[in-house]
Amino acid sequence: MIRIGVIGYGYWGPNLVRNFAETPGLSVAGVADLDQKKLDIVQKRYPGVKTTTRFMDLVEDSSLDAIAVATPVSTHFELGMVVLKAGKHLWLEKPMTETSQQARQLVDEAEKQGRVLIVDHTFIYTGAVRKMAEIIKGDDFGNVFYYDSTRVNLGLFQRDVSVISDLAVHDFSILDYLLGEQPLAVSAVGTNHFPGTPENLSYLTLFYNSGMVAHINVNWLAPVKMRQILVGGSKKMITYDDLEPSEKIKVYDKGINFTDDPQQIYQMRVGYRTGDMWAPRLDATEALRVEGEHFVDCIENGKSPLTNGSLGLRVVELIEASTRSMKERGRSVEVNGKFMYQGRRVA
Amino acid sequence: MIRIGVIGYGYWGPNLVRNFAETPGLSVAGVADLDQKKLDIVQKRYPGVKTTTRFMDLVEDSSLDAIAVATPVSTHFELGMVVLKAGKHLWLEKPMTETSQQARQLVDEAEKQGRVLIVDHTFIYTGAVRKMAEIIKGDDFGNVFYYDSTRVNLGLFQRDVSVISDLAVHDFSILDYLLGEQPLAVSAVGTNHFPGTPENLSYLTLFYNSGMVAHINVNWLAPVKMRQILVGGSKKMITYDDLEPSEKIKVYDKGINFTDDPQQIYQMRVGYRTGDMWAPRLDATEALRVEGEHFVDCIENGKSPLTNGSLGLRVVELIEASTRSMKERGRSVEVNGKFMYQGRRVA
Amino acid sequence: MIRIGVIGYGYWGPNLVRNFAETPGLSVAGVADLDQKKLDIVQKRYPGVKTTTRFMDLVEDSSLDAIAVATPVSTHFELGMVVLKAGKHLWLEKPMTETSQQARQLVDEAEKQGRVLIVDHTFIYTGAVRKMAEIIKGDDFGNVFYYDSTRVNLGLFQRDVSVISDLAVHDFSILDYLLGEQPLAVSAVGTNHFPGTPENLSYLTLFYNSGMVAHINVNWLAPVKMRQILVGGSKKMITYDDLEPSEKIKVYDKGINFTDDPQQIYQMRVGYRTGDMWAPRLDATEALRVEGEHFVDCIENGKSPLTNGSLGLRVVELIEASTRSMKERGRSVEVNGKFMYQGRRVA
Amino acid sequence: MIRIGVIGYGYWGPNLVRNFAETPGLSVAGVADLDQKKLDIVQKRYPGVKTTTRFMDLVEDSSLDAIAVATPVSTHFELGMVVLKAGKHLWLEKPMTETSQQARQLVDEAEKQGRVLIVDHTFIYTGAVRKMAEIIKGDDFGNVFYYDSTRVNLGLFQRDVSVISDLAVHDFSILDYLLGEQPLAVSAVGTNHFPGTPENLSYLTLFYNSGMVAHINVNWLAPVKMRQILVGGSKKMITYDDLEPSEKIKVYDKGINFTDDPQQIYQMRVGYRTGDMWAPRLDATEALRVEGEHFVDCIENGKSPLTNGSLGLRVVELIEASTRSMKERGRSVEVNGKFMYQGRRVA
Repeated sequence: MIRIGVIGYGYWGPNLVRNFAETPGLSVAGVADLDQKKLDIVQKRYPGVKTTTRFMDLVEDSSLDAIAVATPVSTHFELGMVVLKAGKHLWLEKPMTETSQQARQLVDEAEKQGRVLIVDHTFIYTGAVRKMAEIIKGDDFGNVFYYDSTRVNLGLFQRDVSVISDLAVHDFSILDYLLGEQPLAVSAVGTNHFPGTPENLSYLTLFYNSGMVAHINVNWLAPVKMRQILVGGSKKMITYDDLEPSEKIKVYDKGINFTDDPQQIYQMRVGYRTGDMWAPRLDATEALRVEGEHFVDCIENGKSPLTNGSLGLRVVELIEASTRSMKERGRSVEVNGKFMYQGRRVA
Repeated sequence: MIRIGVIGYGYWGPNLVRNFAETPGLSVAGVADLDQKKLDIVQKRYPGVKTTTRFMDLVEDSSLDAIAVATPVSTHFELGMVVLKAGKHLWLEKPMTETSQQARQLVDEAEKQGRVLIVDHTFIYTGAVRKMAEIIKGDDFGNVFYYDSTRVNLGLFQRDVSVISDLAVHDFSILDYLLGEQPLAVSAVGTNHFPGTPENLSYLTLFYNSGMVAHINVNWLAPVKMRQILVGGSKKMITYDDLEPSEKIKVYDKGINFTDDPQQIYQMRVGYRTGDMWAPRLDATEALRVEGEHFVDCIENGKSPLTNGSLGLRVVELIEASTRSMKERGRSVEVNGKFMYQGRRVA
Repeated sequence: MIRIGVIGYGYWGPNLVRNFAETPGLSVAGVADLDQKKLDIVQKRYPGVKTTTRFMDLVEDSSLDAIAVATPVSTHFELGMVVLKAGKHLWLEKPMTETSQQARQLVDEAEKQGRVLIVDHTFIYTGAVRKMAEIIKGDDFGNVFYYDSTRVNLGLFQRDVSVISDLAVHDFSILDYLLGEQPLAVSAVGTNHFPGTPENLSYLTLFYNSGMVAHINVNWLAPVKMRQILVGGSKKMITYDDLEPSEKIKVYDKGINFTDDPQQIYQMRVGYRTGDMWAPRLDATEALRVEGEHFVDCIENGKSPLTNGSLGLRVVELIEASTRSMKERGRSVEVNGKFMYQGRRVA
Repeated sequence: MIRIGVIGYGYWGPNLVRNFAETPGLSVAGVADLDQKKLDIVQKRYPGVKTTTRFMDLVEDSSLDAIAVATPVSTHFELGMVVLKAGKHLWLEKPMTETSQQARQLVDEAEKQGRVLIVDHTFIYTGAVRKMAEIIKGDDFGNVFYYDSTRVNLGLFQRDVSVISDLAVHDFSILDYLLGEQPLAVSAVGTNHFPGTPENLSYLTLFYNSGMVAHINVNWLAPVKMRQILVGGSKKMITYDDLEPSEKIKVYDKGINFTDDPQQIYQMRVGYRTGDMWAPRLDATEALRVEGEHFVDCIENGKSPLTNGSLGLRVVELIEASTRSMKERGRSVEVNGKFMYQGRRVA
């Protein structure tokens, strides 16, 4: 039984505690938060769990094996470092850190300590994303031509992060997981409609060596909620609508054919096939539960998580590149060199 | 009765002829096309209409008052010029011309000849776009923060135009009509997945002096058809789904409030209002019919069309700027100066 | 070339003429209507077609091979009889006649004259209904448990027919085509909200010997348009949404399993399977075109149409039985004997 | 603080406990279930709550003020009676009892004991149903013409209740709440596709003195989940789609006008208005929370609940009438006299 403590009981912490409490192999041993009122709620719901306003009470508790950090991103590096140095496994909320420099240090420290570092890019553990990966990596999909994501809603403005860190990170992690390929460059534009706040709307394009492009539309000011991804391949195409209750993933038997037309020798014709659509059944297990069990498996069997520190680092690097591009109104920013770290590929 | 001839009976020409034939004040007098088979169809459907494979037969026919040009864009300039020089009113398909230089010459020639030049940006004449304009220009909408359009489908590949000229032009014209403001710069990325073809996918962002941004996502390789626009204002927001049969336009009583929070004196808080949604009834008259009647009205009463040559020119300028930006992978391209033409504002 | 005349150029007549005009093997030779204004429209659109306000001009025209009757249902019997007696093939709009007695006489007369009698139950010729039939009659569907149809909209009130004759007839014909089985009894309730008008809302249930039930909900007073059919089978289920542009038919790999549970020996457990969904590609040819070609084929090759007079008769019998049931507020009315006609099965 | 015990921790009990635990004025003091494993879950989640396999431990506990019964319907009467006789307030799941006779006895006993009896018809406490009631009872809706509900899904088969008791009860309670009028008669058809099981599919029509009809389509064998209600009025119409995340209720400014047409003196013309649609903002508070607070208010202030025993009784009477009608394949069954109880109107 792995005893885990949770630092931060704000928006996401309650979801972690609820899932950890019901995950076989995990036991929630303590919760820390600066706000005593939130700890009172913990006490009411989980009377056996130790609560404290001092996070160091958890870090210093030798009965704990792991700690999850669900605090604002500005504190991730400092808290994560303390947890790892105390020899505990680390579950870190996304985005991993404010800078790629900090992310690299955490990756290093986890390796040095021989501890598991998982970054909570939850989408990777959904049935929908796992099914998409299975289809895209299969034989019938063909080359990936584009990935186009829309994540908009009238959401909560956040003071410490932009809409990229809040929403586009989901696509950064999904792209990393779906494709075997890292982007070469990113072009991003964004705007904040309220002086002094981070960007509340952004459009990003990622360029890949294969010719694939990924486009991400994130917006906190939309009247409706949309969570829709299109993936176009040379043989099939996929739509993923996360708000669709029963048929999130649809696979279209549509692709592109080239036709040699002997009579039009200097022309290239593009022919279309249209065919059936298929909506595969998805595993409906809550993603955090899948992820919790994966964390236990990694700790017990010395595995590296699907969403390990290296993936978390690559996501932070994309946030950095996107932010640089936004400052120049969409000028393409290369993300060269980012995958080389201490003389070896980080992956 | 205005006697009109139509040059080109391919994809769009039949729609023109059908609508012109039923528009009061218009009479279809002749149709020209290089393909005799198409003319045979015209003969079968409209036995009284003269047909010819020589477009000059129409241009030289002194009984005609106006000519509509519905041929490939590469021929628009030459044909349009001949029509105007023959002293006839000109209906020109979109995009107006291949270059802004050509568009300016047509604007000049129409003015010189004292003839009406209408560019067929059909969307401006739909009940949906006219209702959007009414709402946005009204008192209750507030400042326009963004315009976000998605036009994707598994469409016909075209060899002579990119997806921008085919689909994004709709948004260029709608934006021109909805806002009193012209964009300062555009950042566009695009890609063609088939060597030697024009771009089949493009993402564009237009920057405005007011802080407004417009984003356009156009794609010929999507598995599903989408025609959706979001417009966000400080007091209300609009969605326009052109594929929705009965409720294309929805107006959301959602906006942004600033809240002074006395306890957080250095911070700005953004509060949300959420409220009702309202879907106004729209005029369902076919847009081409409305446009045909507008054309008659402009000719008879010496008015300038809503979609006159100057609007058509501004659209072509945006295509040019977008194309330049695409070549530099999204680098922002200014569209300064474009609205000054021969020492005066073109509008 | 079969020369056809059309009597009635009101709501549906123009669709007939337009399709007949483009159907290979058919030639529209004349149109009759009492309203000269409608004939003027015909003249404008089809200058070569003879028009007349006297339908007998068509009936007596020996150059015509066939006549389509698209007039109010109260005139179908008389007109149809005249057409058949004149030795012409007959295309009759739905519902075939006001009474089953009249329908039987038309079936007889067509047989006596050796002429083709087709009743225009158009839905049978759509790609969607043909695909449903293919699936339901296939090996993978299992037993049909139920058919559930909703056809509602804010439609045109009609003074001479009820909502059953206007909308439920579609389901009566589809059911006849999909299933090899005729209903035993019908229970119908209905109401008219305006004194002196026919029923504007009705709910019908058809009982079959196999245990299958069919339910039909038709309503002229709904705020939204719905055209949705569910068909439940023991192995698979189908939804058919006629307003869905691209995926009208969806096939669900869901069915019912019985599980023997040894520990619950007196109980029957019903287990569920949930599986994939599949939306087959449909033939998009306009149904009237398919039906027109089928009419030509039947005439030229002496075949009986899919929607022959016997099918039309069975539909009228169901209208009669439903109307009787409505008068008794849903009391089940047997439709026994209806399929026996002159000592033999009508089919 | 009202101390409440919960009997039954199966499908619905956990929702009760979770909501009661967070309702101000309520405190969950004990949970009884025959299955010790379920009690173990209670212990883990709510360590301070007493658990027992003997429901009498709760009934006999003098520290409890109220008991909620969430067991199979066949036990409702016996358990409810014991609870009331013990002088405790009673929260009873729906449907209230198996027979109207039992329901009447519980109503009597509650009155005799002076205790609150609430039947958990949860829908009445949703923001959507409360908004519908507000609109329908307002001045702008006009006369109610029809209520049409579809509740279908591939649900859990239940051995002890039919689909009417499981799903149609929701509409019975909503109709009772929305209208000031009780139905005169019901026509119901239904079928079970598996011998020995209750009906898994049913179509019901309720007739009202005003001419209003209510139609209910309930089905456990559908491939998709649908929860849709249409309400048609003489001035406006409503749709309520419970699966729609943000716009469940839509109000259409569509109605029916009579036009006096002097030239058609024997005819009645029905004209249509079509107008705007409006989707009001709804209170999103969880219905069980609203209901829990209402229960507290009724106990503390001696009020009768919105969903009191009399409403619960009327619902059971409709189940009985529907079941009788189903046995006669839709023959209309009167529900006369049912509202007279002990010489007075039960309401």
